[in-house]
Amino acid sequence: MPNDTIDTSALGAPGRLHPELATELVRIVGQEHVFAEAADKLRYEIGARYGEGKAGFVVRPSSAAEIGEVLALCLRTGTPLIAQGANTGLVAASTPNETGLQVVMSLERLRGDVIVDRANRTATVGAGVTLQDLNEKLAADNLCFPIDLGANPSVGGMIATNTGGSRLVRYGDVRHNLLGLEVVLADPPGQVLDLMTGLRKNNTGYDLKQLFVGTGGAGGIITRAVLQVHPLPRQTATALIVPTGQDAILDLLIALEGEFGDFLTAYEGISKTCIEAVLDHMPSVSNPFAPEPIPDYMLLVELSATASRETLGMDLQEALNGFLEQHFDVLVANALLDGGPDLWKIRHSISESIRHQGKLIAFDIAVPRSAMVAFRAEAIAMMDARFPFLRLYDFGHWADGGCHFNIVWPKEAEQKPDDATIESLRIAIYDLVVRSYGGSFSAEHGVGPYNERFYHRYTADTVQEFAGRVQSAIDPKHVLGQVWFGPER
Amino acid sequence: MPNDTIDTSALGAPGRLHPELATELVRIVGQEHVFAEAADKLRYEIGARYGEGKAGFVVRPSSAAEIGEVLALCLRTGTPLIAQGANTGLVAASTPNETGLQVVMSLERLRGDVIVDRANRTATVGAGVTLQDLNEKLAADNLCFPIDLGANPSVGGMIATNTGGSRLVRYGDVRHNLLGLEVVLADPPGQVLDLMTGLRKNNTGYDLKQLFVGTGGAGGIITRAVLQVHPLPRQTATALIVPTGQDAILDLLIALEGEFGDFLTAYEGISKTCIEAVLDHMPSVSNPFAPEPIPDYMLLVELSATASRETLGMDLQEALNGFLEQHFDVLVANALLDGGPDLWKIRHSISESIRHQGKLIAFDIAVPRSAMVAFRAEAIAMMDARFPFLRLYDFGHWADGGCHFNIVWPKEAEQKPDDATIESLRIAIYDLVVRSYGGSFSAEHGVGPYNERFYHRYTADTVQEFAGRVQSAIDPKHVLGQVWFGPER
Repeated sequence: MPNDTIDTSALGAPGRLHPELATELVRIVGQEHVFAEAADKLRYEIGARYGEGKAGFVVRPSSAAEIGEVLALCLRTGTPLIAQGANTGLVAASTPNETGLQVVMSLERLRGDVIVDRANRTATVGAGVTLQDLNEKLAADNLCFPIDLGANPSVGGMIATNTGGSRLVRYGDVRHNLLGLEVVLADPPGQVLDLMTGLRKNNTGYDLKQLFVGTGGAGGIITRAVLQVHPLPRQTATALIVPTGQDAILDLLIALEGEFGDFLTAYEGISKTCIEAVLDHMPSVSNPFAPEPIPDYMLLVELSATASRETLGMDLQEALNGFLEQHFDVLVANALLDGGPDLWKIRHSISESIRHQGKLIAFDIAVPRSAMVAFRAEAIAMMDARFPFLRLYDFGHWADGGCHFNIVWPKEAEQKPDDATIESLRIAIYDLVVRSYGGSFSAEHGVGPYNERFYHRYTADTVQEFAGRVQSAIDPKHVLGQVWFGPER
Repeated sequence: MPNDTIDTSALGAPGRLHPELATELVRIVGQEHVFAEAADKLRYEIGARYGEGKAGFVVRPSSAAEIGEVLALCLRTGTPLIAQGANTGLVAASTPNETGLQVVMSLERLRGDVIVDRANRTATVGAGVTLQDLNEKLAADNLCFPIDLGANPSVGGMIATNTGGSRLVRYGDVRHNLLGLEVVLADPPGQVLDLMTGLRKNNTGYDLKQLFVGTGGAGGIITRAVLQVHPLPRQTATALIVPTGQDAILDLLIALEGEFGDFLTAYEGISKTCIEAVLDHMPSVSNPFAPEPIPDYMLLVELSATASRETLGMDLQEALNGFLEQHFDVLVANALLDGGPDLWKIRHSISESIRHQGKLIAFDIAVPRSAMVAFRAEAIAMMDARFPFLRLYDFGHWADGGCHFNIVWPKEAEQKPDDATIESLRIAIYDLVVRSYGGSFSAEHGVGPYNERFYHRYTADTVQEFAGRVQSAIDPKHVLGQVWFGPER
């Protein structure tokens, strides 16, 4: 349970917000940045995909100092505090529960300047800056922060989640591109831990910022960061490839990496059902393979190069096309070349389109990429046997083993969705992923109230104990972050 | 002081090794893997560059289980234990002190198999495997672990130090390429923390392995690792460039990154004195610029491409040469093209050659690369003013801001080297690096007894307190690792 060690005896009355809370919040951040009315709070209370709660108040501080004061106030009044970025998270880590006794702290006002340092290839940003705003600012210097997501999160949220995205095979995740951090600590409450540096080489002790990456807000509130940024590509080449069979997918990837490792930016697998869902949902989009039927499975490949055609004396699309021709019939059955933005538009419309087919039961998993084909086959067989009425719409980041193994309970199914069946499906899939294939039950989205039980199910006791020791050292009263990473209590 | 909280009351007598120690060590690892004779212990007692101590015993376990038993024995008998990889470290973190009461545990036998996974692009290795052995094994599959050092460390040592090297701008450091880890913990003593995974996407809680990267053996002994490996380049292009002036260096780097960001692998700055030292020390090497004199400063640039000339339709060396021609006179005064292995041979001979000029006072520092020129100028001016008898031989990893700002107290100097003067030099340089330029006093080599005092001098109190809390949670009795990262006690 979130913040269950908060001393609630200071609460005005059991089940009531502390009487001083409102006036004190207003004193700290100002009237217009404290929301008490239901209509004002609503958008902070509903998670991007899962979760819906009731906040006692929503507060919007504008500085590390205000954050520290709010934190101290919440501690003093026994009020659980939940930090929230742009509220695009998918594990309800920044969503309040139904009690109405929690305060949601939105970091949206922590925008400040985006300081782009061309010479050092870094950007210093406030935690409230969104990914889109950041990339708009960077584009002016031909730079980018190349974490490619289907959403527009805040930088603080990206760090707390360690978002990955479609381009991880080339650029890495947020962790790989984080140089410096500023955090307001849970303990001592409100103390600012200044780890702001843009150095790429600095072996001077513990890399403490790692403790705040991917841990969903545990132990501290991120206020600023120094990010490594990259030159915008001058050339891109895309192709939608139909492999000769499932077995060709890995061979093709290895061949691509062996030849185009400098440029390989994305290698996305897409099932037929995903394309069908997109065509169904978006009438303006047509079958890219027409008049051929949609193939069972396809790969969206993107290469990108910093160098121009002139400098390289080479056209990336031509080089890719030549490579595919070379592997025709052996690995490649068909290919659509240079569909560019249209192909990515289809790819990015999949999540939304799927949701119109019925109830989405999403699985953000990863297995070693050498096991992807076997996992998929076994999971499909298991579903056919145990859950034949469910439909699979899987697509994923094949090059790094990630898969959105998304399942839909169709609108038209006779049997209506029930929690027990869905939970047994989750256990069946995750058991396969983690226990049979050594994979991850949360490749990108992180751990939050929505999936915390699986953290405890799949993480070894020794690891949970160690994690709990570390979390206790950082945040002994478990004041910040909704998940307790130690053994279940 | 190392391991100063070990309960030494169990020692047989003050200043004596515990009487049971020898027989118990032999029982655990076998007679041939316990060294008591001075001649056998010597090579483990002398640091690669600094430090020379006396080990009570040297022990060489072959498994995590044996390591755990040795650790428990040392705890029981109040014997400080120091883990050692290939003994190539440069901060004395694996060197015993003079007491002769410490046991050095060499991890050299933890070699096991190097398991290369071509499909997943990973290598699973024992901590005792050396970098050269690893790369020999990987070459068979056209893969490499591209951390380029002038030494041959063990993988465990590389992780504990977070080695960087010349190719960081392209491949990152060890941290960026570490996927999984196995550690024998200090607490509970001997417990194995299994974080062995090859997944690239796995957001399931704390990334606990980070706590053992770059911390010099604190809290645990690394036994195995899963590393991300990379395709061997098929093309490389090198050039030794003379910039038109110091101000051109950063502009040239930005231009190179903007055009060749996909390929830029190294951008090394080298001072004239370094080349002179190499020519002096290695008669087989001649002035690469002859008959021109050696320029004041030069840049060794390397590009590498996974793709072949055929696939790309492009020759990398030609492309680089064309680029340099384009910037001639503006940024480039002169260039030697495609010197390849000879240029790198010169580069890698610098450290050794310098040592023949006198007493080496090495500085492994980093500043933001935009500040490199200003830092260098200010440091040189300071040396001219305060230490005119010293000579500078600086070279470095310009692209990531790293600099080996190596100073020599010349053999022929009237004034002979004294510790007080050397220490005041260190303080002067490090104060400049850290306090004036926001840099690092240890870019690559890590923190050990040799430079621990600077960790405490330059790390903010809040950061030390936080680090100490974390280290105490992991290793409450400070059993493993020679450095205490909390506030000085």
